[in-house]
Amino acid sequence: MASKRSAVDPFRAMDVLSEANRMAARGLDVISLAVGQPAAPAPKLSIAAAQAMLAHGRIAYTDALGRSSLRERIARHYAERYGCAVDPARVMVTTGSSAGFALAFLAAFDAGERVAIAAPGYPAYRNILRALGLVPAEIEVDAADGYILTAERLAAEHAREPVAGVLIASPANPTGTMTPRDELERLVRFCDEAGIRFISDEIYHGLTYGEAEETALAFSQAPIVVNSFSKYYCMTGWRCGWMVLPSSLVRAAERIGQSLYISAPEMSQVAAQAAFDATSELEAVRETYVRNRRVMTERLPMLGFSDIAPIDGAFYAYARVPAGEGSATDFARRILDTCHVAITPGLDFDLRRGEQFVRLSYACDEASLIRALDRMAAGRA
Amino acid sequence: MASKRSAVDPFRAMDVLSEANRMAARGLDVISLAVGQPAAPAPKLSIAAAQAMLAHGRIAYTDALGRSSLRERIARHYAERYGCAVDPARVMVTTGSSAGFALAFLAAFDAGERVAIAAPGYPAYRNILRALGLVPAEIEVDAADGYILTAERLAAEHAREPVAGVLIASPANPTGTMTPRDELERLVRFCDEAGIRFISDEIYHGLTYGEAEETALAFSQAPIVVNSFSKYYCMTGWRCGWMVLPSSLVRAAERIGQSLYISAPEMSQVAAQAAFDATSELEAVRETYVRNRRVMTERLPMLGFSDIAPIDGAFYAYARVPAGEGSATDFARRILDTCHVAITPGLDFDLRRGEQFVRLSYACDEASLIRALDRMAAGRA
Repeated sequence: MASKRSAVDPFRAMDVLSEANRMAARGLDVISLAVGQPAAPAPKLSIAAAQAMLAHGRIAYTDALGRSSLRERIARHYAERYGCAVDPARVMVTTGSSAGFALAFLAAFDAGERVAIAAPGYPAYRNILRALGLVPAEIEVDAADGYILTAERLAAEHAREPVAGVLIASPANPTGTMTPRDELERLVRFCDEAGIRFISDEIYHGLTYGEAEETALAFSQAPIVVNSFSKYYCMTGWRCGWMVLPSSLVRAAERIGQSLYISAPEMSQVAAQAAFDATSELEAVRETYVRNRRVMTERLPMLGFSDIAPIDGAFYAYARVPAGEGSATDFARRILDTCHVAITPGLDFDLRRGEQFVRLSYACDEASLIRALDRMAAGRA
Repeated sequence: MASKRSAVDPFRAMDVLSEANRMAARGLDVISLAVGQPAAPAPKLSIAAAQAMLAHGRIAYTDALGRSSLRERIARHYAERYGCAVDPARVMVTTGSSAGFALAFLAAFDAGERVAIAAPGYPAYRNILRALGLVPAEIEVDAADGYILTAERLAAEHAREPVAGVLIASPANPTGTMTPRDELERLVRFCDEAGIRFISDEIYHGLTYGEAEETALAFSQAPIVVNSFSKYYCMTGWRCGWMVLPSSLVRAAERIGQSLYISAPEMSQVAAQAAFDATSELEAVRETYVRNRRVMTERLPMLGFSDIAPIDGAFYAYARVPAGEGSATDFARRILDTCHVAITPGLDFDLRRGEQFVRLSYACDEASLIRALDRMAAGRA
């Protein structure tokens, strides 16, 4: 009855969220380390901007490319943060980065084309690519190579069978690892020379704990950059993100966006713009991740986790399931049932090796994280 | 540089909106009859629900299928309004009807399959179908047949070359015409017998001026129903809609939705639920359309418009461009430039005959509508 192409994998973290919501509705005290979503609310300035908008009442469609003042503010962000000049005409506001990926894939690639992604990686990349008739070319990375997809690995895959594009996130999900600046530059330059479209998922920018992150736009204007207000800016449920497109793709993305999305939610766009002025509040949230990251680094090995990917950024730990605990799916199920702690089995991120790994998000508050780890240590809620 | 599949037609109404926004930013007093969007704000109860949510601050991802209380409330709406039992498990909350169409198409059809739609019709149908690798089978309807796509016409198209699905809106966009109840039943029964998936776009339900509308679910549980809070409920920019799916498609739509959208905006879901209790306020808005419709019916012929489609519902008039005014594109351009009134050229809705027609939305307030028509009569702003 359903189409063949709808047989994409589930996004298991969302299934875990659903299950955790059902348990919470039954009155259970579930702590979620499953979904990549900050416990902190949107910045006060964003809330105030939304309240002001509600007071006048009418929330309408915007231009398909987004409100022009937000597009200008995003362009200014590139100047301020990265020292990069970006024309606001190249900025498109999207309904979360989710819409950004779909629009980027549709604007840049035709059905049947191959797009390289890293495994482990964000499952929606693979699922959206498949749903849109594209072929994910998964390149495995692992602890031995620091979970980095290098230009050499991409070149080898491209030589084996050409790819039309590559999508890289730095900091990455689920690992939190960063592609070093010089490696990012090598990747971008290789893609420009080989005629491969580089898509840079920069959604975890702002959440780094060592080396500062760099935008792909520092090296070329050909990449498509996808970003969002969901992570650093703490605005997941507002569904607002953005893309920076090469000029040649703006009208294509606009045309598809007009029909496929109409526009991103207007109030979210207004609130998101205010978030750029909330740096001190957002940096305080980031400080909680710094503390949580320390807790994770200390306690995960004590709980038997191993092969923990380098947590350079984002708010995840990706770790091998403790010995004797069985598959990641069984382990996550048991932790949810007995400890009431939701974590995400690695199969979301890596179809071949994922049953050996789980992802734990530490975007929650520190007290909840400690309670969750205590429960896991005790083996019960 | 851009993909071949991104060469879909623009959604010209959105281009007109963009242009009108740019003119307004220059200080011009532009009256928009271009986009199908109520001038009325969201209901007071919805605003209050959003304000309450902002006060606690955290707006998060929901289940991919939507908040369970909203899904239950939508199911109850079918019992109350149509006397139809709908299991909440079959309801999926979507990011506007836009997401509903994309999810329905991806869940039900594989690339290369044909889906019948009426011409003139909502341009996003055709554009989303094409972007997703499907083939729109456009069946022309016109004033002679009351702009109704009948079961006989569908059967003839299906005999010529099989279709996998059909998508019908009643009341329709751009015409406002309704498919009579017995014709809707014939269509649904024909589709069930022929193995054609029926998709019923019911976004203009609640906005009818004669015969009451019927849901496709009154006749079968096989159709996919797409609806939204944008039109009757006056919540365009909130980006919230819903689908009722046959049970066999729910998990497929959920899986795709998890990756492609994550979830609809949470605050919009909460506000939308409150809109079901705002009937008296929304009926008062509908009364303004009743008056506006009378104004349109009286004045459009005086302005030289002809072949006006039967305005049974929605808030549009679809009419032939006055003689001597040239193409619809030129006419709309001239009206925008000289009268500062935005209307939509028919090419959006009908690629073959659309240059002879324009769509005028009367979802604005009555005073603006009268000012717009006065300007058009005077030939200047």
